[in-house]
Amino acid sequence: MSFIATLERAWQRTQSLLCVGLDPEPSRFPPHLTGRADAIFTFCRDIVDATAPYASAFKPQIAYFAAHRAEEQLEALIAHIHARHPGLPVVLDAKRGDIGSTAQQYAREAFERYCADAVTVNPYLGFDSIEPYLAYRDKGVIVLCRTSNQGGSDLQFLDIGGQPLYQHVAALAAEQWNTSGQLGLVVGATFPKEIDAVRQRVGTMPLLIPGIGAQGGDIEATVHAGRTADGTGMMINSSRAILYARSGEDFASAAADAARATRDAINAYR
Amino acid sequence: MSFIATLERAWQRTQSLLCVGLDPEPSRFPPHLTGRADAIFTFCRDIVDATAPYASAFKPQIAYFAAHRAEEQLEALIAHIHARHPGLPVVLDAKRGDIGSTAQQYAREAFERYCADAVTVNPYLGFDSIEPYLAYRDKGVIVLCRTSNQGGSDLQFLDIGGQPLYQHVAALAAEQWNTSGQLGLVVGATFPKEIDAVRQRVGTMPLLIPGIGAQGGDIEATVHAGRTADGTGMMINSSRAILYARSGEDFASAAADAARATRDAINAYR
Repeated sequence: MSFIATLERAWQRTQSLLCVGLDPEPSRFPPHLTGRADAIFTFCRDIVDATAPYASAFKPQIAYFAAHRAEEQLEALIAHIHARHPGLPVVLDAKRGDIGSTAQQYAREAFERYCADAVTVNPYLGFDSIEPYLAYRDKGVIVLCRTSNQGGSDLQFLDIGGQPLYQHVAALAAEQWNTSGQLGLVVGATFPKEIDAVRQRVGTMPLLIPGIGAQGGDIEATVHAGRTADGTGMMINSSRAILYARSGEDFASAAADAARATRDAINAYR
Repeated sequence: MSFIATLERAWQRTQSLLCVGLDPEPSRFPPHLTGRADAIFTFCRDIVDATAPYASAFKPQIAYFAAHRAEEQLEALIAHIHARHPGLPVVLDAKRGDIGSTAQQYAREAFERYCADAVTVNPYLGFDSIEPYLAYRDKGVIVLCRTSNQGGSDLQFLDIGGQPLYQHVAALAAEQWNTSGQLGLVVGATFPKEIDAVRQRVGTMPLLIPGIGAQGGDIEATVHAGRTADGTGMMINSSRAILYARSGEDFASAAADAARATRDAINAYR
């Protein structure tokens, strides 16, 4: 089954648009995990198992694993999600962008090594840098469009013939690059007007929306701007506000509470 | 010593502008390395040792290691370069681009874990995605500007108030982002006119120029367009034409021959 079909089924089955972001920072782990060689895996696994009832996707951010030489823990974590929570897709947040021959290697990393269901990519190198990922027909490719950080405006708001660059990227993705129906877009919750502009351009294409929680995005405005006619179409991501809801041994149950509350806040506006 | 001072000293000492790109593909290795657990390290180490007399920098491409679960071999390779070829800087080609908190993790990966002297980054997320790397004052940060692939034109040639996006990025890097003097730019050898336009904008900022060799860039046109007044200013990268010059047990001596010939071809036009 394709990534997008899996995602749509997960939205229906779970009645949740919440994507739980997995950005493990060992310095913020509860004390009982300190010093354990498998602390990153254990922390994330406990978060996953506690929040899975309230989520429709998971998004591990690879930088947080790579900085700590924890690639094997990332492999184990994704395998755990597939084994214990089948039907909940895993988006590997890697934001890769490179020429075709190198993109083939990154696609192999994301899809063959880590067995992710989708990967985030950067559009700056153009379509031939994205094409190698599309050779994996059952996988999803989520293209950066309007990122959630303030600095995103440096390039993404530049005027391209009357429209900002991020809208041009949305149009390229929807009208030229999405021949195989595998694409989605990243649009930050910190900019609801831009979510609305992108949704107008791209039909029902799935949007990965980071920026609620620690980054301060507004849930009501995000949902109103990004929902499709059936009230889905979004992976609304929260990472830090869920992972670090409490810092003691009860971190996982606190994360579950935060995930449930976030799911419910999203659903209140669908 | 800063990355750029190290690089300038290497250019003077070696009288070479050649950067040897390390893109290991096990399927192209000589047969005697087949099946060895350390094949990637051994192949690259032999290439490094054979080509070091003709190079002023090395550029491992991280995707080729990550696709094969070879992070530890990349660590060992960079440590080997530092130990055996001191003064030759290592540029980790990773093309990272993410929001600030994640960029901190990628900077830690590049500079603390791998001990690279510089890293390539993507400008699509703007300055706050680049700033965390600059906290490492002795390191270099090489920003993608005009990449060597055809698809690069999809975004990089878009018109921004009378100039293409890649020139706008060059101007941002040179005039606003380079407050600490740590930046360089990537400009592909497949587009010598664009190298010239960038050089006009950025003074003596170092340029990393991929695209000669297998990608077909013209050496004479590249050198004429990219050199600074003292005949340096460029890391001209060749990967596949050197790595895979011959496929037998003599691959390293063939790589040395190819590296020497490339260095000489570059020097003929300086």
